[in-house]
Amino acid sequence: MTTTATEYFPGVSKIAYDGPDSRNPLAFKHYDPDAVVAGKSMRDHFRFSVCYWHSMRNAGADPFGVGTRNMPWETGSDPVEVALNTMRANFEFISKLGVDFWCFHDRDIAPETPDDFAKTNQDLDTVVGLAKQLQGETGIKLLWGTACLFVHPRYMSGAATSPYVDAFVHAAAQVKKAIEVTHELGGEGYVFWGGREGYDTLLNTDLGREFDHLARFLHMAVDFKKSIGFDGQFYIEPKPKEPTKHQYDHDSSACHAFLQKYGLVDHLKLNIEANHATLAGHSFHHELEYAAANGILGSIDANRGDMLLGWDTDQFPTDLYDTTFAMWTLLKSGGFTTGGLNFDAKVRRQSVDPEDLFHAHIGGMDAFARGLKVAAKIVEDGRIPDFIAQRYSSWDSDLGKRIEAGHVGLADLEPIAHQRNLASVPSSRQEMLENILNDYIC
Amino acid sequence: MTTTATEYFPGVSKIAYDGPDSRNPLAFKHYDPDAVVAGKSMRDHFRFSVCYWHSMRNAGADPFGVGTRNMPWETGSDPVEVALNTMRANFEFISKLGVDFWCFHDRDIAPETPDDFAKTNQDLDTVVGLAKQLQGETGIKLLWGTACLFVHPRYMSGAATSPYVDAFVHAAAQVKKAIEVTHELGGEGYVFWGGREGYDTLLNTDLGREFDHLARFLHMAVDFKKSIGFDGQFYIEPKPKEPTKHQYDHDSSACHAFLQKYGLVDHLKLNIEANHATLAGHSFHHELEYAAANGILGSIDANRGDMLLGWDTDQFPTDLYDTTFAMWTLLKSGGFTTGGLNFDAKVRRQSVDPEDLFHAHIGGMDAFARGLKVAAKIVEDGRIPDFIAQRYSSWDSDLGKRIEAGHVGLADLEPIAHQRNLASVPSSRQEMLENILNDYIC
Amino acid sequence: MTTTATEYFPGVSKIAYDGPDSRNPLAFKHYDPDAVVAGKSMRDHFRFSVCYWHSMRNAGADPFGVGTRNMPWETGSDPVEVALNTMRANFEFISKLGVDFWCFHDRDIAPETPDDFAKTNQDLDTVVGLAKQLQGETGIKLLWGTACLFVHPRYMSGAATSPYVDAFVHAAAQVKKAIEVTHELGGEGYVFWGGREGYDTLLNTDLGREFDHLARFLHMAVDFKKSIGFDGQFYIEPKPKEPTKHQYDHDSSACHAFLQKYGLVDHLKLNIEANHATLAGHSFHHELEYAAANGILGSIDANRGDMLLGWDTDQFPTDLYDTTFAMWTLLKSGGFTTGGLNFDAKVRRQSVDPEDLFHAHIGGMDAFARGLKVAAKIVEDGRIPDFIAQRYSSWDSDLGKRIEAGHVGLADLEPIAHQRNLASVPSSRQEMLENILNDYIC
Amino acid sequence: MTTTATEYFPGVSKIAYDGPDSRNPLAFKHYDPDAVVAGKSMRDHFRFSVCYWHSMRNAGADPFGVGTRNMPWETGSDPVEVALNTMRANFEFISKLGVDFWCFHDRDIAPETPDDFAKTNQDLDTVVGLAKQLQGETGIKLLWGTACLFVHPRYMSGAATSPYVDAFVHAAAQVKKAIEVTHELGGEGYVFWGGREGYDTLLNTDLGREFDHLARFLHMAVDFKKSIGFDGQFYIEPKPKEPTKHQYDHDSSACHAFLQKYGLVDHLKLNIEANHATLAGHSFHHELEYAAANGILGSIDANRGDMLLGWDTDQFPTDLYDTTFAMWTLLKSGGFTTGGLNFDAKVRRQSVDPEDLFHAHIGGMDAFARGLKVAAKIVEDGRIPDFIAQRYSSWDSDLGKRIEAGHVGLADLEPIAHQRNLASVPSSRQEMLENILNDYIC
Repeated sequence: MTTTATEYFPGVSKIAYDGPDSRNPLAFKHYDPDAVVAGKSMRDHFRFSVCYWHSMRNAGADPFGVGTRNMPWETGSDPVEVALNTMRANFEFISKLGVDFWCFHDRDIAPETPDDFAKTNQDLDTVVGLAKQLQGETGIKLLWGTACLFVHPRYMSGAATSPYVDAFVHAAAQVKKAIEVTHELGGEGYVFWGGREGYDTLLNTDLGREFDHLARFLHMAVDFKKSIGFDGQFYIEPKPKEPTKHQYDHDSSACHAFLQKYGLVDHLKLNIEANHATLAGHSFHHELEYAAANGILGSIDANRGDMLLGWDTDQFPTDLYDTTFAMWTLLKSGGFTTGGLNFDAKVRRQSVDPEDLFHAHIGGMDAFARGLKVAAKIVEDGRIPDFIAQRYSSWDSDLGKRIEAGHVGLADLEPIAHQRNLASVPSSRQEMLENILNDYIC
Repeated sequence: MTTTATEYFPGVSKIAYDGPDSRNPLAFKHYDPDAVVAGKSMRDHFRFSVCYWHSMRNAGADPFGVGTRNMPWETGSDPVEVALNTMRANFEFISKLGVDFWCFHDRDIAPETPDDFAKTNQDLDTVVGLAKQLQGETGIKLLWGTACLFVHPRYMSGAATSPYVDAFVHAAAQVKKAIEVTHELGGEGYVFWGGREGYDTLLNTDLGREFDHLARFLHMAVDFKKSIGFDGQFYIEPKPKEPTKHQYDHDSSACHAFLQKYGLVDHLKLNIEANHATLAGHSFHHELEYAAANGILGSIDANRGDMLLGWDTDQFPTDLYDTTFAMWTLLKSGGFTTGGLNFDAKVRRQSVDPEDLFHAHIGGMDAFARGLKVAAKIVEDGRIPDFIAQRYSSWDSDLGKRIEAGHVGLADLEPIAHQRNLASVPSSRQEMLENILNDYIC
Repeated sequence: MTTTATEYFPGVSKIAYDGPDSRNPLAFKHYDPDAVVAGKSMRDHFRFSVCYWHSMRNAGADPFGVGTRNMPWETGSDPVEVALNTMRANFEFISKLGVDFWCFHDRDIAPETPDDFAKTNQDLDTVVGLAKQLQGETGIKLLWGTACLFVHPRYMSGAATSPYVDAFVHAAAQVKKAIEVTHELGGEGYVFWGGREGYDTLLNTDLGREFDHLARFLHMAVDFKKSIGFDGQFYIEPKPKEPTKHQYDHDSSACHAFLQKYGLVDHLKLNIEANHATLAGHSFHHELEYAAANGILGSIDANRGDMLLGWDTDQFPTDLYDTTFAMWTLLKSGGFTTGGLNFDAKVRRQSVDPEDLFHAHIGGMDAFARGLKVAAKIVEDGRIPDFIAQRYSSWDSDLGKRIEAGHVGLADLEPIAHQRNLASVPSSRQEMLENILNDYIC
Repeated sequence: MTTTATEYFPGVSKIAYDGPDSRNPLAFKHYDPDAVVAGKSMRDHFRFSVCYWHSMRNAGADPFGVGTRNMPWETGSDPVEVALNTMRANFEFISKLGVDFWCFHDRDIAPETPDDFAKTNQDLDTVVGLAKQLQGETGIKLLWGTACLFVHPRYMSGAATSPYVDAFVHAAAQVKKAIEVTHELGGEGYVFWGGREGYDTLLNTDLGREFDHLARFLHMAVDFKKSIGFDGQFYIEPKPKEPTKHQYDHDSSACHAFLQKYGLVDHLKLNIEANHATLAGHSFHHELEYAAANGILGSIDANRGDMLLGWDTDQFPTDLYDTTFAMWTLLKSGGFTTGGLNFDAKVRRQSVDPEDLFHAHIGGMDAFARGLKVAAKIVEDGRIPDFIAQRYSSWDSDLGKRIEAGHVGLADLEPIAHQRNLASVPSSRQEMLENILNDYIC
């Protein structure tokens, strides 16, 4: 890692793979980056990424309390100096963790100076300069960048979907710069998350016009990306609600409908977040399967919600069922190209020590490593995929093929139905399949 | 009404409009069919419809108990005779209620004979013959028909999306006949509700292939409809879950994505059900606005869920806020053409008397009549629409128009943003607007 | 109102009652404080209260954005001076609004000085001194006080239920002082809201021991209250979750169980909050009825949640059904004694103007005024209460009375059952009753 | 097993323990009844029970479809003969599965003859006679019995809480007989599940009177139990809703409040059902911990809900986290005495084969066997319990002990707080603990 005057995580050395029997909480028990599973190294399967906002900047405030975390990099009175130190801490942390990628929002890595776009951009460039240097020194790469279009009061009614054209204009300028610095850092993608692109009440909202504006905004970004030669992947990130009552990028199918309607489906893929899926009433697995089936699965924000809580808890993913299903879909759909597994997760408000940041990421990475191993067993052992193939095998008959090919109509099928009795269909064996799944989890 | 030997609702005469001060529970206090509101009679605004399944056939069983309702038309040992009597009761009920439309599923109006498609169709024709006669005698029309593809065990794993091609074939034959009898009855539309078009577990499901089959099925129906000259509107009805864990027609945006992907968006509109909206985590109003904004609002299944219960309670709509919002969206979007307000609602299991069926429908119709009057006030008084127009007025500026027209890019907007400070944007006045809304409710 | 050098709401005069036809958004249309409904003035029915935390201190930050509100009283560099100005603004606001009560948390009205309890208490006394003076000048009274035991990091794991005895000790000292200043201000009650009295995970929690500590804490408070002669009512406020995963005062029945187990049921009543009820999966009406039926209904935190959102949105109450049901229960149970209707509600983050604070409270007060009028109609008209009385009338028979009195056993009833056939029971007429309710809403 | 003319599960032999590496889906991989874990055999830890209603009687109907299951024991025209055959199938199934207990509702095992209580009881006695014989032959015991007070229309408005005294009287007679036959069969307990003891709307409900009646009913049952010398444990089973909108036995704390208020807390314990817990917004683990901490944990209805579905899905338990937490609480609290783990779970509607009933139970038993092994590791390894003990260790100080003992008051603690600074408290290490938990799962 980079040589810095200050070490921000002095008690922690590089996290090593110690194997499943280790009792060292600060070691990997399953994630072995160069171990090959299903024909590819774990490192390449996951393309793990650390997010800057939660790990470096989020002090743990919640609606009922102030920040609690001990964040030694956040000291100093000059905001740019603090920003530079925080960036150094970021690369120290990621290096020690042994992760290959990071992600950021523009306003997280550098301060905004009120009423002074030039100064704001200049400070951003300063911090980006350091980040680029640290990337070079450590080999850590940028998975994706993004712009924060939801914290500032000017975006309180939305950015691209604001009723106020000036907010759109500001967002446009901010996104232009964010794409530029993402490009400068060699980012492999860029994410649009519509923090407040939605509404709190329809009593003051022109929903149709807001959708149109959002599409316009994205088209402008697509055009701009081409104009500067940035060939990173664009993503849109579904979320159903929070902070607004309804967000337009509600879930993967809402994004899919939107992208199709506005001619954007070839330009953006989805960045699926687990907790956003569950807030929308879907399983994480469902959202991934839907996106994969429709060719729009791009990247993943890995975390976990609490199914009994109605807000974005952004917990670290530890449920082995969730990680298994996610990796199964990834294995089936060919895995990531530009995307990766970004831990959009935060330590609990009571996890106040720098050490907790390591526990959290280690747990998440090990959970995905186990999920990958289980998913590989599902695929290799074959009992579940074979059951599915067999279940649909009547569609591989001549009649099935002709229907799939569009060669028959209702009137053609009517006499066939009249001939064939169909009192029932075979058991779906859900319980047996759930038992087999449990057999693989070990 | 029609002359029948038996009167099934002997204690109830034709329901009259008695005005708001009436204390007669079996009279309308607000629904006055020929009263003109916002330039159209109430009758034409609502195009109210009674659904056959809940009103005539649903005895009130729930997962923990048997049927409870007193349904005198359900006596007799010959199933066809019972079916004919039930149809007579249906027209007696609708006539007394003063509603203009009805809706049905094929298997609700006539019995299915196991292993005998021909006999089943013949019995269906018999009942349809009586229905046609009663339509002629009463002037009641068919809003839409549909096929029941979810009760029979053969459809337990889906119909159009069944893993078993024979189930698809049976569904195709059944839908062909259902479209034919809908056509025969002069139906103004036909609804596809994917009762079990979804999955219980992804462990046994090929999601992508099932979506393809669903699209194929609908294309076959579109082709068939044209082939017989049926020009009624096709609808698809969103529902997120129940009876399956996940239904493919999840919500309006999921349907919108699906229709676009498979080239069906010009052939089907949506039949939005209130309770299905809330089960999907949306307000009824949202689903209507989304459909209207995307040109796919077709018809409405009017009911109400209990926001604290997670299943389709199908209660009669009585919440004046819900009916107001629905009618506001309808007024703004031009109202129904082929669609209407079908009461897909059932009396509570404890509401066992035939009289309760009247209370329920009268309450729903009056609630919509009041909602229409409030919505008309919103539009005519103008304070809320004017507030919205003013809120978006910066988009009517030259800059706003150029952005909307696609004439500017991110790089054009950047210098404008740098010039204009934007510390905040105006108040959205949500509370004031909510107060104005309450002023209209009286 | 009091004479102050600065007027914080210069554009708004005292809010007047203008009657239902007024189009002045800054006037009451239904709340007429001295109008008598059901034998008591509206003022005395409601005992409306303004909460200091949301109205004066909450700038509108949410988990995704900073504060937005324009709060002119929050200027100045000396925190005590700011606190005094804020208190002046509070009394100006309440005076102009015409409300009779206010409520506060200790740390909202005066700043905490780190590591200096003496200075913190001294500053609190200074602000309380001004508050007492302003109470005298305006006639506004204190409904209840409370201590903030959830914002500071020392309480991150709970206060009375903290695993760390020092946190308990600090909470004890803070509550002692908060009760003292409540007493000093003539408060009619004191509320315990267990902001973080719960857990985030059972993996690190001794649930039983935490319950015991909570009970101990409350007993100490009860003893202290007596020792200083404070005869205000103590309340505990149910909330199911947020900020923690599970809060021990989950809902009214959880509080009821707790109070009974630990011998506290004679010492504390409940302060029921509407949004907390719905987060717990109950209707607001249910929680009120439960508390009333068990003799523990004390006071109300009036607000509203969004039934589709899983967090405490604390919106102002405007739903006429909710206000009707609440007032119906209050009318039936005799109304408030020491309690009142405290608006624990906040303007939306986009409602940034001081004026919005008036819209919000006016809307809430008018909604409750209408709810009271509807509830009075329910009671006076009698159709609904009479239906209920009739429905249970078989319990007023001799057999019913003997059962209720405990004079018969199972063996006595068996022969009676064997004699009486009971194929069904009468209709519950839910739809008819819902229609009658709607008739009253106008 | 018993010699019967007919074998209902001919394709399945006695299920054997084959060890973790077995690929035989009809073998146990973890449940080894006589293996000793944490000092007790698995058999004695779990006291597994099969429920009659779902396994033998539930054909798979749901609100949108008829039954689907192949149930060969349900043939025949004489209802008593069918009932006897079904009882034989029940004991064949349980014997082959190797489970030690069963549970039943009165109306599941024998038919009700309308208007003829004597005949109904006589038929019940006939079936009970066979059950007693089969118990003797197989060694299978009765965990508990109960009465079905929710299917029949007479109970549509409740049984013990019905507004109609005759429904209460019928329920009393039915429960008397159900207790008698439970006693006859040597049942170790008796469960009260208030199927419809709740309300659908407060518009027609006297909540307080209904609670009183429920308490009266239970007191009568307690008295009767003593009068006949039945010393089995009484249980009440919490459920928040469904079929009613609100059930009075909402969750464990609601039951706890009720039992305390009415002097029943020494007479009834709780039968906690996993899916009922999650419907109430609690984790299964929470409900168990709450009951254990309050000395009212009696028995368990083992199943699983779908956290994204709002009804009682009653799936078989397979989630290893859930089974681990349940067994951890049981180990800590001393385990079952009269209670046991009853599979109140049903095969999915698409799992139509008799074989599926075996898959389902085997999966559930293996999941609990693994949960027990993981829980035993948690206890034996000690890292998690030690962390908890350490976390609360300040309460073991002199000050902590004095507070717990009630020897100090607020005024005593104030000076201590003033002396001790408390800027924060230690990390709760949630992520580390979650990682350790995952280490144990294998």
